Amino acid sequence: MNRTLVIDSISQIGKEVLLKGWVDIKRDHGKLTFIELRDRTGRIQCVGFEKMSELVVQSPIEIIGTVKLRPERMVNPEMLTGTVEIDVKEYKVLAVPAEVLPFDLGKAELDVELPTLLDHRPVSLRHPKVQAIFKVQAVIIDSFREFLKQNGFFEFQAPSITGAIAEGGAEVFEVSYYDKKAYLTQSPQLYKQIVMSAFERVFSVNKVFRAEPSVTTRHLTEVVSLDAEMAFIKSWEDVKDMADNLIKYVFEQIEKQCAHELKMFDVKLPQTIEETPTLSLTEAQEMIFQKLGKGVRENKDLNPESERDICSIIKEETGSDLVFIYGYPTKKKPFYVYPNPKNPEFNEGMDLLCRGVELLSGGRRINDYKQLMEHVKEWGMDQEKIKGFLEAFKYGVPPEGGFAFGAERITMQVLGLKNIREATMFPRDMERIDYQLP
Amino acid sequence: MNRTLVIDSISQIGKEVLLKGWVDIKRDHGKLTFIELRDRTGRIQCVGFEKMSELVVQSPIEIIGTVKLRPERMVNPEMLTGTVEIDVKEYKVLAVPAEVLPFDLGKAELDVELPTLLDHRPVSLRHPKVQAIFKVQAVIIDSFREFLKQNGFFEFQAPSITGAIAEGGAEVFEVSYYDKKAYLTQSPQLYKQIVMSAFERVFSVNKVFRAEPSVTTRHLTEVVSLDAEMAFIKSWEDVKDMADNLIKYVFEQIEKQCAHELKMFDVKLPQTIEETPTLSLTEAQEMIFQKLGKGVRENKDLNPESERDICSIIKEETGSDLVFIYGYPTKKKPFYVYPNPKNPEFNEGMDLLCRGVELLSGGRRINDYKQLMEHVKEWGMDQEKIKGFLEAFKYGVPPEGGFAFGAERITMQVLGLKNIREATMFPRDMERIDYQLP
Repeated sequence: MNRTLVIDSISQIGKEVLLKGWVDIKRDHGKLTFIELRDRTGRIQCVGFEKMSELVVQSPIEIIGTVKLRPERMVNPEMLTGTVEIDVKEYKVLAVPAEVLPFDLGKAELDVELPTLLDHRPVSLRHPKVQAIFKVQAVIIDSFREFLKQNGFFEFQAPSITGAIAEGGAEVFEVSYYDKKAYLTQSPQLYKQIVMSAFERVFSVNKVFRAEPSVTTRHLTEVVSLDAEMAFIKSWEDVKDMADNLIKYVFEQIEKQCAHELKMFDVKLPQTIEETPTLSLTEAQEMIFQKLGKGVRENKDLNPESERDICSIIKEETGSDLVFIYGYPTKKKPFYVYPNPKNPEFNEGMDLLCRGVELLSGGRRINDYKQLMEHVKEWGMDQEKIKGFLEAFKYGVPPEGGFAFGAERITMQVLGLKNIREATMFPRDMERIDYQLP
Repeated sequence: MNRTLVIDSISQIGKEVLLKGWVDIKRDHGKLTFIELRDRTGRIQCVGFEKMSELVVQSPIEIIGTVKLRPERMVNPEMLTGTVEIDVKEYKVLAVPAEVLPFDLGKAELDVELPTLLDHRPVSLRHPKVQAIFKVQAVIIDSFREFLKQNGFFEFQAPSITGAIAEGGAEVFEVSYYDKKAYLTQSPQLYKQIVMSAFERVFSVNKVFRAEPSVTTRHLTEVVSLDAEMAFIKSWEDVKDMADNLIKYVFEQIEKQCAHELKMFDVKLPQTIEETPTLSLTEAQEMIFQKLGKGVRENKDLNPESERDICSIIKEETGSDLVFIYGYPTKKKPFYVYPNPKNPEFNEGMDLLCRGVELLSGGRRINDYKQLMEHVKEWGMDQEKIKGFLEAFKYGVPPEGGFAFGAERITMQVLGLKNIREATMFPRDMERIDYQLP
């Protein structure tokens, strides 16, 4: 007898099926035992005989039983399989739990503090609401790749170990590399520009590492960076449009593939409109001043409060939860960001804000070798450390740009999570690698 | 005027198109200048006027011209666009190379030594035959994911930084983690088993790091590991069959998507047959003894010579380039490998050999907590270092197994590359991180 997946049993009314899964919930009712069986496709209610009360929760079992339509009044709209139940004929235990669970997995909400949940990651990963987070994250990462492949982007593998850190050394992890020193990459930025210079349109899904000196709800030491870079652009707006369409595609795919997961978190996806509002930093600051009377026009960037302010204003005026901000002071950004030719004090870097926080950043980069070298000198970069990057630009690179965003940040934002640690299976921070550090 | 991609121009005979790309090759013929323009889809011949001889090779340019069918005798069967050429009307240079190339990119074969090729990675990546390697690799990685998603596997992100190394400490890289010590993961093995215990069928594409103490043509310190793990198996053969079908799917996709690339390398994919031959270690040793008279029956494993021998024998007898070997001495393998219940001295671990080398390894794992703890003790494992792994098995895990293979190794094998460094954009080894270490 072949296995039937839980989700497929709803179309097998009246038939005998073989199910395999874990006993998530067990309720004894005298002669009847109700269990909720979980497999990778969801949970289903199974009605068994008295002997089944011997089952220990979280045991993996096999069940043979008949799929029955539930009476109307017993239908459970919260369950994907809420219209049916399994009338158990026989069952087999595949493994018996050796210990009592550290916390109850049977409730709709996990009732434990975050550190406990993370200290017992193998257990909390079995909870449907925890699994929902990673299902959404898998869709985010997969739809990022899917959209870019459809648009002619080529996937490459960015390195994690690097020999020299171009910018800032404080927040970098050092690796003992034989008798040499090496570092963990903080960003694939320079590598993706190198690969773009050969493959034109490229993307990578890779780990980046930052030795953040503090513990916050929004920082981890190891995260998944979603990076893209594209050549032969006409202006920075080609990069913005690609990022805009990508984010909208990611949201669409979440809506399509994760309706059940969004419902579990009682959240709605960010509202988007046909043309995502786009403002220069100066325009955004002027708008905040005009609408809210706040004197932010002299600032060199949007601070967190201004990010929230401009998002509120845009939301109210256009309905869009997204807004692009571009044109930052050139000197405040990395050396490779392209200065606006009409007003070189401001650059063509951009950020995408969503509901008050930055979701993605990118922009046009300098492609001309001479201009790049001028910036390298002006910014005081160590040429030896970026010689591979510079070599790529020696031999002719067309106008180009790109963007990046973090898989955990966007998961957190979409599901309204309060702590980024919830959006990583195995979070690493100053105090934790799997477990709290002694 | 919208851009036309090089590959699409073959269907635009007689039409005016706008192409964008790099000048890969330039030939002056008096009043005519021939160039080969490369974009992300391939190369095309463009015929221009005398002034075009000013172009420097590798310049990124835009061309407007008419697509013309080549006369029969001028058709170039080696080029995907060999039936057409572009009659150039006008062109625009997008950037001028600042220096002369360190080596010629115009020939079909790159005529440089490997260290030079790697020292100038940004340059060599522009060569079509080098690009072909990474196109094949992208298809390998993508079809690995595609096949597993189709089979209900869930993608997770395995961590790179780990707090403790379960097995062996010699070949591990240490990371300065604030005032603590941490390590780079050598394998996601224990993590993928944890995630399997919650998600049932899982896979990951992730970096693994090994501080190999020597420099060989087959080892790197940073590689891409393709990992999968599945629960609710009936026997180890379910794992073997999944791996077998996966590898065949990967080969099919390479055949389908990379015909041009395989032709450039003049290679044929490994030959497969409906049922991949499967032998126990003992059977394989017996066969080598019977056929070749070599006394290998007392060995604890197949040595490289025996791997080549058994592959030759199987190839001759069945036509298959693939052969599974299973059943290794239990004590010679890691603690988590499942011993054969009928003969516990041998386990249900397996390797897939292809043309004399190991392509993939895996097998069934121990799922019962008590049995696992017995092995932990017998193998002398430090329980504290694997407590997260052990916790997953405390609460009920069904029979399970999995497998892993390296993206670079399989790329090397498929294309017949002599050195694994060719199969990595940015290879890291004892002597190199981007550049040869001083």
